[in-house]
Amino acid sequence: MIDSDKPLKLAGREYQSRLLLGTGRYKDLDETRRAVSASGSEIVTVAIRRLPDTAGGDALLPALRELGCTILPNTAGCYTVEDAVYTCQLARELLDGETLCKLEVIGCKETLQPDTIGTLKAAEQLIRDGFHVMAYTTDDPLIAKELGDMGCTAVMPLGAPIGSGLGIQNRLNIRRIVETCAAPVLVDAGVGTASDAAIAMELGCDAVLLNTAVAEANDPERMAAAMKHAVIAGRHAYLAGRMPARIRGVASSPLTGTLNG
Amino acid sequence: MIDSDKPLKLAGREYQSRLLLGTGRYKDLDETRRAVSASGSEIVTVAIRRLPDTAGGDALLPALRELGCTILPNTAGCYTVEDAVYTCQLARELLDGETLCKLEVIGCKETLQPDTIGTLKAAEQLIRDGFHVMAYTTDDPLIAKELGDMGCTAVMPLGAPIGSGLGIQNRLNIRRIVETCAAPVLVDAGVGTASDAAIAMELGCDAVLLNTAVAEANDPERMAAAMKHAVIAGRHAYLAGRMPARIRGVASSPLTGTLNG
Amino acid sequence: MIDSDKPLKLAGREYQSRLLLGTGRYKDLDETRRAVSASGSEIVTVAIRRLPDTAGGDALLPALRELGCTILPNTAGCYTVEDAVYTCQLARELLDGETLCKLEVIGCKETLQPDTIGTLKAAEQLIRDGFHVMAYTTDDPLIAKELGDMGCTAVMPLGAPIGSGLGIQNRLNIRRIVETCAAPVLVDAGVGTASDAAIAMELGCDAVLLNTAVAEANDPERMAAAMKHAVIAGRHAYLAGRMPARIRGVASSPLTGTLNG
Amino acid sequence: MIDSDKPLKLAGREYQSRLLLGTGRYKDLDETRRAVSASGSEIVTVAIRRLPDTAGGDALLPALRELGCTILPNTAGCYTVEDAVYTCQLARELLDGETLCKLEVIGCKETLQPDTIGTLKAAEQLIRDGFHVMAYTTDDPLIAKELGDMGCTAVMPLGAPIGSGLGIQNRLNIRRIVETCAAPVLVDAGVGTASDAAIAMELGCDAVLLNTAVAEANDPERMAAAMKHAVIAGRHAYLAGRMPARIRGVASSPLTGTLNG
Repeated sequence: MIDSDKPLKLAGREYQSRLLLGTGRYKDLDETRRAVSASGSEIVTVAIRRLPDTAGGDALLPALRELGCTILPNTAGCYTVEDAVYTCQLARELLDGETLCKLEVIGCKETLQPDTIGTLKAAEQLIRDGFHVMAYTTDDPLIAKELGDMGCTAVMPLGAPIGSGLGIQNRLNIRRIVETCAAPVLVDAGVGTASDAAIAMELGCDAVLLNTAVAEANDPERMAAAMKHAVIAGRHAYLAGRMPARIRGVASSPLTGTLNG
Repeated sequence: MIDSDKPLKLAGREYQSRLLLGTGRYKDLDETRRAVSASGSEIVTVAIRRLPDTAGGDALLPALRELGCTILPNTAGCYTVEDAVYTCQLARELLDGETLCKLEVIGCKETLQPDTIGTLKAAEQLIRDGFHVMAYTTDDPLIAKELGDMGCTAVMPLGAPIGSGLGIQNRLNIRRIVETCAAPVLVDAGVGTASDAAIAMELGCDAVLLNTAVAEANDPERMAAAMKHAVIAGRHAYLAGRMPARIRGVASSPLTGTLNG
Repeated sequence: MIDSDKPLKLAGREYQSRLLLGTGRYKDLDETRRAVSASGSEIVTVAIRRLPDTAGGDALLPALRELGCTILPNTAGCYTVEDAVYTCQLARELLDGETLCKLEVIGCKETLQPDTIGTLKAAEQLIRDGFHVMAYTTDDPLIAKELGDMGCTAVMPLGAPIGSGLGIQNRLNIRRIVETCAAPVLVDAGVGTASDAAIAMELGCDAVLLNTAVAEANDPERMAAAMKHAVIAGRHAYLAGRMPARIRGVASSPLTGTLNG
Repeated sequence: MIDSDKPLKLAGREYQSRLLLGTGRYKDLDETRRAVSASGSEIVTVAIRRLPDTAGGDALLPALRELGCTILPNTAGCYTVEDAVYTCQLARELLDGETLCKLEVIGCKETLQPDTIGTLKAAEQLIRDGFHVMAYTTDDPLIAKELGDMGCTAVMPLGAPIGSGLGIQNRLNIRRIVETCAAPVLVDAGVGTASDAAIAMELGCDAVLLNTAVAEANDPERMAAAMKHAVIAGRHAYLAGRMPARIRGVASSPLTGTLNG
């Protein structure tokens, strides 16, 4: 069957969907819920430190559980190794021992770019402490490789700055990370519309994580559906093996022999 | 329901799928059949003058009918107005009075680029003769507008040269055609992989026609599935209204208020 | 000598500079004069029908002559074949029998895109009437070829819409025109900054014509100097034959043998 | 005077040229010499550990001195902090106490990508030891900022992998580095042709360092001249302040008032 694909494996669990959704910036819990449903996401990330200010507030976590989602706590807003590690520990308590976490150690308040050195340190501590770390990082292939080698559950390079919607800036780096990183690779941040997500998957990424592209679309629910299809499209295109690009046109119908001679 | 969309209307008929597939360059009829099925296409185009040399030969048309497809005859390989018009007339007889046709008047043997002036003339003659003309053309917005104004059923600008797989070269022109052309607009030619098809739809095209990208993928059937999802993804993304692209990053989670803060 | 290059030949005259400058949108005649000087342009184009509203007004032509420039009258603002032809005839009288003209037959008031069919007709009439026609056109390679074959002195495809500053949208088409057009090829319209002009020349164009990029820079005189160098840079790069682009990095120093090793 | 520009200052010295050239991969010393001359470069970099295998060998340094160039020793081929530091010390002896050095700590033998963490360590040691460090690094803006803050003489992000000729992959990052880095910023690596160098300067870089693009052009001397002009072009364009890019065309001649109208 053509739609077959092996599942995405993270921390020993298997997922059919290769789209992970964030929960920030929605208007209200209902909008969040409809977007998550339409996206088909099985993993949904929550900014633990900003939970009170996220749409839904305390009601968000139960709502996501009801939708059958794995809740992936993230450390958005953490600017130090200590803060990030502490936030993960807090999340583990809050989420009944959940060891999966999305690590963000932010190095710049303006661009929200990850601090790669802090990320390496925090990842090491968290792994030692029993966490399954999905590490948000830059698209530096050597840093990504190091995160994979130290045992991160996933490595998540940005495609472009968080919330920019500019699409993948450096395809070379993303492809290189896919080739050299031992862990599953997810593009996280920078996706602005469906084709951006498809491109991430065509480069060979294992999954895509996005938030703003859905939450700030005019119709978030419909954009969530767009992203669901885009990730499937890009994944199949990657597995199918695309045609070579050619500078000169080549007839798509055989050039010899015509009905009229 | 989020997956709702109005159908694509062509020549008074309605279609749920916005992906049209070509039948050139497949290995054999079975591969063609599986690709058409996986693509979900309801309209499939056939190079009438090259039918004997197309995979399946005489068996192709009955096979496509069995799949429930509208057969769209095309005039690939025609370099003059007369040849193109004659080929359409021939196709009408062959296909029991089918008036829908895909007009190609090619102006260059090397790049297979359309001859716009010949295309305008042939389209005029064919419309006068009762045909429903889907006109393959360049991405010149003024030519496209003229084709729409004269009553073409669809206008089909190329994204890049036929068989090149280079993706849409001039998004500005495609968008301009979408804005100013009275007829439905389909990108025809140039799509190389799934994201290219998604981009065409995100620009507001009504549908996408492609062939080589599927036929020359390592796994045509899977690529056909990729294209099906890509077209749906791009269509939803267009209808949903994408987020604005921003140069400076903006946090995707609210910046104020933290659990520990 | 490395800076050697054969001159640009147009209508039997030879030019060292491959940058042509427009005279619209400057603040005053002094700014025009300084920009022309800094650009090193030897051919400067003037919108004949808009002369009263151009900076300098009646004083513009004498000022340009004083700078030693060939004045190239253009038919900007002409929307019909008749208007364009008449404007060229008027210019010939105004400019003491000058037969060189830049033909624009505009087809769209909003984008100022050329009407290719009108351009072909007007070019034919003007050539028959003894003009040396430099024809502004789209980047359609077949139309460009036809203009060259009919005897145009130069063919001038747009890189992007006039005044857009978006740079060359379709490099494939510009390169194809360079390969197949019998006349010198100039990119005309769309250049926004220096690298855009360099790219046009790297694609093999014989020259570049621009206006807004200089006139609407914060410092037009300095941008004119930038464009002068950019055109020289792109020309030399084209003649020098660039290195191939490679996906994998290759050391730029020999990899074997080290001082310590 | 329009061609005026403040000089580039590095380690207390002033340079008129903003193009730095490498000496690897030339055919012979004569080719090197002619390329350096044509480029107008005042700073030329030499791979100290590969000197015996570089065109010219022992004769290279005296030849460069004769051309009046500052010789910038680099640590190409160094994969550890120790090797890089030792190579700089060796170069200082070899070059009569020259403290300027180009630091490369390479992290990947295949792509020659810099190891950012090793680079930070080596830079710190070298600065403490009295060197003026020009640090080759990735385009990570936070790493670049740190290198600038610690006192590097220049920060040199790659535009694309060394020897790839692919041009600047991530303009956003280069621009961000220009905005936030305390030291002069040079794009080093990735330039393939003249427009790539112009783009680097248009983004606001202080200078460009390149090697393969000249050495592997068909005609290195002419490409060196192309690069000289490209860097000047891009610098002036940056200083001039480019026009805004616009989606809709705007007439470059005033739209009101026509001679015949």
